[in-house]
Amino acid sequence: MRNAALAYAESQRDAFLTQLFDFLRIPSVSTQPAHRPDIERAARWLADHMRAIGLTRAEVLPTTGHPVVYGEWLEAGPQAETILIYGHYDVQPPDPLDQWLSPPFEPQVRDDNLYARGAADDKGQLFIHLKAVESYLKGAGRLPVNVKFILEGEEESGSGGLEAFVRAERDRLQATAILVSDSPMPSPQQPALLYALRGLTYMEVTVQGPDHDLHSGSYGGAVRNPAEALCGVLARLKDEEGHITIPGFYDRVRPLEAEEREALARLPFTEARFLQETGVPAPWGEAGYTVLEQITARPTLEINGLVSGYTGPGSKTIIPATAAAKVSMRLVPDQDPEEIARLFTEHVARLMPPQVRATIETRHTAWPVLIDRHAPAMEAAARALEAVFGAPPVYTREGGTIPIVATFQRQLGAPVVLMGFGLPDDNLHAPNEKFHLPNFYRGIAASIHFLAEMGALRTG
Amino acid sequence: MRNAALAYAESQRDAFLTQLFDFLRIPSVSTQPAHRPDIERAARWLADHMRAIGLTRAEVLPTTGHPVVYGEWLEAGPQAETILIYGHYDVQPPDPLDQWLSPPFEPQVRDDNLYARGAADDKGQLFIHLKAVESYLKGAGRLPVNVKFILEGEEESGSGGLEAFVRAERDRLQATAILVSDSPMPSPQQPALLYALRGLTYMEVTVQGPDHDLHSGSYGGAVRNPAEALCGVLARLKDEEGHITIPGFYDRVRPLEAEEREALARLPFTEARFLQETGVPAPWGEAGYTVLEQITARPTLEINGLVSGYTGPGSKTIIPATAAAKVSMRLVPDQDPEEIARLFTEHVARLMPPQVRATIETRHTAWPVLIDRHAPAMEAAARALEAVFGAPPVYTREGGTIPIVATFQRQLGAPVVLMGFGLPDDNLHAPNEKFHLPNFYRGIAASIHFLAEMGALRTG
Repeated sequence: MRNAALAYAESQRDAFLTQLFDFLRIPSVSTQPAHRPDIERAARWLADHMRAIGLTRAEVLPTTGHPVVYGEWLEAGPQAETILIYGHYDVQPPDPLDQWLSPPFEPQVRDDNLYARGAADDKGQLFIHLKAVESYLKGAGRLPVNVKFILEGEEESGSGGLEAFVRAERDRLQATAILVSDSPMPSPQQPALLYALRGLTYMEVTVQGPDHDLHSGSYGGAVRNPAEALCGVLARLKDEEGHITIPGFYDRVRPLEAEEREALARLPFTEARFLQETGVPAPWGEAGYTVLEQITARPTLEINGLVSGYTGPGSKTIIPATAAAKVSMRLVPDQDPEEIARLFTEHVARLMPPQVRATIETRHTAWPVLIDRHAPAMEAAARALEAVFGAPPVYTREGGTIPIVATFQRQLGAPVVLMGFGLPDDNLHAPNEKFHLPNFYRGIAASIHFLAEMGALRTG
Repeated sequence: MRNAALAYAESQRDAFLTQLFDFLRIPSVSTQPAHRPDIERAARWLADHMRAIGLTRAEVLPTTGHPVVYGEWLEAGPQAETILIYGHYDVQPPDPLDQWLSPPFEPQVRDDNLYARGAADDKGQLFIHLKAVESYLKGAGRLPVNVKFILEGEEESGSGGLEAFVRAERDRLQATAILVSDSPMPSPQQPALLYALRGLTYMEVTVQGPDHDLHSGSYGGAVRNPAEALCGVLARLKDEEGHITIPGFYDRVRPLEAEEREALARLPFTEARFLQETGVPAPWGEAGYTVLEQITARPTLEINGLVSGYTGPGSKTIIPATAAAKVSMRLVPDQDPEEIARLFTEHVARLMPPQVRATIETRHTAWPVLIDRHAPAMEAAARALEAVFGAPPVYTREGGTIPIVATFQRQLGAPVVLMGFGLPDDNLHAPNEKFHLPNFYRGIAASIHFLAEMGALRTG
């Protein structure tokens, strides 16, 4: 069965790529209301595609937010393993548009890479598993396990709809393992299994100064400038050594163990590549931790956006009426994202000068995650990756957030296998996002092997 | 002659207003390249209008920037006084558009006020003098003095073109007094003569962090965020007492004399009205000075605009590639705007963290101004204002900047009479800019009286 699936996949390389192009052309940006019709188009496209590859059920299901696409093939029977495969069909906004070398929603292959918004995050990666399942159903007539797909449309805006859906549909989603590909591997030769994800608390701070923009000549000198007030507060959220100054912020952070720091230090990470990927002259972060620890195993606070007053060409001499910042914090076990939102809110309110009025809102939150590296499904995934890449996976922590993973863990009680096929230089959330095409094809093979290994857990 | 002119002006009230509406409909925004054709349209409209009211010469003259409109009537002869009248036909950008109660370029009268961008700053005020001159030429057949108009199109972006023009055309512009209306009076009952203006140094700071926006999950914690770096620097430009911390900033500031502080304290300024005009819960400024001193007689530093990263609806989890701020400083005698630009640049460069790259540019500069309150032209203006308003003018300092006034003083060696008809609540540079219509008509009468008083200086 495994070999028939692998042969089918090999014969369909061009067709698989053409289909992925069609999927990437849909600008399913979940954070912008104007793209709501594109989100719905992407969901319908996926359900149609699931039916075409032979799933026995495929539907677009409403949630409190964007729809979930659910599909299943359960004919391996109740005694077989059931794998729930998760992905997200929504993408980040493409701005700034002028920095893309080819348009974000017109996929283009250059060298070995496929360029498009969503190529790696996460349309290309979720498509891997659809193609692996197709390869079994069309190449061998059946699958070695039961399969359920759950593909959401608002991962980039907090997975609110799916969170509620998972809680409400625990029975339908019951599985023995959960498979997620939405993360990178260190290099094209080195597969990885992720065992930790950072959580997120995303805040928005709006400062109101005067009730309208004021002439800075007529009023300048006697009005607290809201941009100045906001900068003053934001500047005080970290100290000179990069420590976050919010009281209580670090209280629940689990210290890194010596053994784990050693394993992280052995990963193929080089500062030279970090500087090349980012274009910064030097790294800068929390004192006492390596760069890799800073970006995966320590909590952070970043300003994601900032706006006040006149930002167009030329000049305008005003005291702005308002200033606003988007600020997000990445969290590590065992920080509680709601508690962090409260600590941030209290601290910012305390620092804000009394001559302005501030509104502090929580935009969304996600729990951090830790996964048992020795669960049978994790070991099956390790065998599958080694079969395809010729090397055993390294175990990594990821700085990013997949909000729903914590919910799967808590609600479904099954191990979550985080088997990603992205690369560190994929330009996620940035212009010129790409997906390394050899990883697309190897990912399909690895998914075929994983399903076979999971099937063998019961029969073998 | 004076009475004939006054009678003519009285008979033409409706026609004058209709003409002003036509002028205000032209969106002559000088700071935005897209409005260049509107600037040129406004200039041609003014030259045509000058010919229609009887000036013997009227032309649109090119400068290094936007054109100057020059007009003259010199038939009072070489022995008579010559008054050079200045105004600017460009306006500020109208943003934010959604806060206007009527569209900015569709003038509307509500109660006693005319609402439109440029109504007070400065189209409505320069139009006063065109109507005074028309009243003499059409009502009496001649003027008691020679008159020259010089109307510029880039006051709101630094008067660069006019500055060069005045230097190059000193002979043509020679005058015994210069008349400017581009400032407010304290109330509709209380006329004013301005004797001091603040100068300006307008800077733009751009901070480059990574060379593209980065995923804040994958890189957050080890990259110096340019928005954070910029906020950190901006937050350190003032201390907790509102003093500007740039070394050397105050070195050339002329201290306020006790007599002047007493005169300022007698002006009809109330904090209650200040709070009402601005909508702030409390004033805030440099410790040791009254609000009126802070906004007119002390130098300031204000953030005019701030932008970084994602500022649209929803959220985006990035470390921005860049952050930028527009920062302007109002200056008082004897601060040198170019020197202040240098001190600002050095200080900001010194504060900027080494993990980001900053560009610091001077956008424009203007000298502060002081005028002799006892010059004959100032005394003629005082008599004209008292004749119309029934009260002698108060002598005020203005927090705003009219960049060209310093150049007139230096290049033409004539006293500059700053006789303004705006009001403190005109919403200059803000939504719902207005001009108090009774001031428009009284301004015309005052201008007629001033020209008569100036004529009487030689003959009387």
